[in-house]
Amino acid sequence: MGYNQKMYGLGSRRSIIREIFEYSKMRAAEIGMENVFDFSLGNPSVPAPAEVNEAIRDLLAEKDSVSLHGYTSAQGDAGVREAIANSIRMRFGVEMSPNLIYMTCGAAASLSICLRALIEEGADEECIVFAPFFTEYRVFVENAGGHVVVSQPNDKTLEIDPRDLESRINERTKAVILNSPNNPSGKVYTEDTLRALCKVLTKKSAEYGRPIYLIADEPYRELVYTDVTVPYLMNLYQNTLVCYSFSKSLSLPGERIGYIAVCPDMAASAEVYLAVCGAGRSLGYVCAPSLMQQVIARCLDAKVNVEAYRENRDLLYNSLTACGFDCVKPDGAFYLFVKSPSGDAYELYERAKAHELLVVPCDDFGVTGFVRIAYCVDHARVERALPAFRELAKEYGL
Amino acid sequence: MGYNQKMYGLGSRRSIIREIFEYSKMRAAEIGMENVFDFSLGNPSVPAPAEVNEAIRDLLAEKDSVSLHGYTSAQGDAGVREAIANSIRMRFGVEMSPNLIYMTCGAAASLSICLRALIEEGADEECIVFAPFFTEYRVFVENAGGHVVVSQPNDKTLEIDPRDLESRINERTKAVILNSPNNPSGKVYTEDTLRALCKVLTKKSAEYGRPIYLIADEPYRELVYTDVTVPYLMNLYQNTLVCYSFSKSLSLPGERIGYIAVCPDMAASAEVYLAVCGAGRSLGYVCAPSLMQQVIARCLDAKVNVEAYRENRDLLYNSLTACGFDCVKPDGAFYLFVKSPSGDAYELYERAKAHELLVVPCDDFGVTGFVRIAYCVDHARVERALPAFRELAKEYGL
Repeated sequence: MGYNQKMYGLGSRRSIIREIFEYSKMRAAEIGMENVFDFSLGNPSVPAPAEVNEAIRDLLAEKDSVSLHGYTSAQGDAGVREAIANSIRMRFGVEMSPNLIYMTCGAAASLSICLRALIEEGADEECIVFAPFFTEYRVFVENAGGHVVVSQPNDKTLEIDPRDLESRINERTKAVILNSPNNPSGKVYTEDTLRALCKVLTKKSAEYGRPIYLIADEPYRELVYTDVTVPYLMNLYQNTLVCYSFSKSLSLPGERIGYIAVCPDMAASAEVYLAVCGAGRSLGYVCAPSLMQQVIARCLDAKVNVEAYRENRDLLYNSLTACGFDCVKPDGAFYLFVKSPSGDAYELYERAKAHELLVVPCDDFGVTGFVRIAYCVDHARVERALPAFRELAKEYGL
Repeated sequence: MGYNQKMYGLGSRRSIIREIFEYSKMRAAEIGMENVFDFSLGNPSVPAPAEVNEAIRDLLAEKDSVSLHGYTSAQGDAGVREAIANSIRMRFGVEMSPNLIYMTCGAAASLSICLRALIEEGADEECIVFAPFFTEYRVFVENAGGHVVVSQPNDKTLEIDPRDLESRINERTKAVILNSPNNPSGKVYTEDTLRALCKVLTKKSAEYGRPIYLIADEPYRELVYTDVTVPYLMNLYQNTLVCYSFSKSLSLPGERIGYIAVCPDMAASAEVYLAVCGAGRSLGYVCAPSLMQQVIARCLDAKVNVEAYRENRDLLYNSLTACGFDCVKPDGAFYLFVKSPSGDAYELYERAKAHELLVVPCDDFGVTGFVRIAYCVDHARVERALPAFRELAKEYGL
């Protein structure tokens, strides 16, 4: 053939989320945007903190063009990495070095680079993900030459099941990807669960005489709604790589800025960091966007209005459970994970659509029978959508 | 092993350019920056045009945070793609569609994505590059699963030799990468050469019954110093993909912004475009930086001060040839390619270093015996360096 068939497949097989997005635009043109209740996209609805645009303006005024817009080193500006390492030291008590921080073009880049750095080509290596999981993990793992293995959660709570994890580990297991707070369920895994999980990884690493890596995908770390803590995994397990992104914490998803941090306690931390540098180079990432690197270094303590998301969560969760839907109560991220009353996710998706409610059926996310409601939207949209949700509940006889 | 050995190799094997960069910093600390004549890095020394920072300020004032910093669609903002398609139509007379433009994080991303979109895994496909060539091509081609084949130029002029190209094409040839104006030689290939090259590609595509793609890597298109034209390759050959970057044309190398344009005359243009979309997704590129997308759409006609580069070129070329060095006169980019009087590039590099002149030995670029002088530096640095070049010439007995 004239081109790569797998890439053509990836480009032409639209994700369901993208399809709903297109439908939403079309439907809004037909009946008005205010009458379409689109909860499909994880695009932050709250503005970036004022500090972000202030930092941009200040940098334009202070710095000359070449130091503002010029190449940084491939791993990122030294001052920016120092600021991030300090922040990790202060917040989490980890002895982070700037030489273990690698700036990236956002979370997808962080994950792609980590996986490419770790997985050996042609060795048939496996990467374990915990259902429910963000579907693009499969794309990134396969691009790195690995295979995805899905660990199933506790049925009722969707908490990770460490025994299930243990049963999936074998001599080809290279890494596990953990995402807490979780997309699509909004779950924040408990410290007990994570300690049990790390115990399994420690035991199995010893058994095989080599590290099984823990890749912590943490774009939602700052979005939590209760006083639950989100443990910093480097404090629980030495073979951890943190993939961070400022997409959600600073509402900058389009700017593509994040980082990889390699745990300083990892035995081969320096070598793994060099493999990360090599993987970034190999995938065509020359450096993370330079202006945004400098912006986030000045905004590490800035916060988006998490309260707005919490209000949406409370109203949606309380209303949907009140009319009989079975939902996992989300402690973080901005997703509500709702069980289909009939057990059929696509049926719930279609029936909701008839009421102009656009939600994402999640069978591809590794558990069946759920839809995802992204509540990173105007509060008014949530309010206007409630009667439609009530109608839907009635239809199901709830 | 615990991690990918090839990536570790890529990350730890520093490029010679990076090594010189570190040496330069060390040496500047020892004897003062003004006494080190660093010509190693291709980092633009002229500021971005004033329009760039104006556009950033205007956008911050005009747009709300979510539309400014939010996700764009994966292929790029529709309005930005429309603006670029219009610009291509106007400048080059090609019937470009916004649906054949894919926004990227710069030239390295553009090339990585194109190669991944075209090269079939496990099929042992080849990609031809023309010596001298930018060494990272090898990394990108190999990441996509292909092999690099080097076509040798005409010895005297470094012009591409179409007969040499033809002799290298076989049933496994998937694409050729063309870079004009060229890094490292500064050559702008003549229209005659390019027509001959495209004739070979047309003939061979017909012979094999499938397209051999031409990937035009064009970050230096706007940097030309004479009235030579840089032909737009889509007008010469239908199976062309243009990889463009604003790194040099707007002095924004750190911002990582560019695009891929697929020729509308290509038989499978829509399919190849979808493969490009899939390849971007697979490599972890979610979208190009959103603020910068909007900035460049407003600055498509802005120009950097090319005159500053021309003055450096003239002074360097005239001075070096006057004292006996054999140089290829560069019509574009910001590199001067100098032949080692002894034929040994590393010897010239070492001898120059003894005079605090930092240049790049280019044996890795596919031709032996040359060094590259990157003259994207302050004019004063060129002036101060001339006595050292004269001393060096004397040493060689020129």
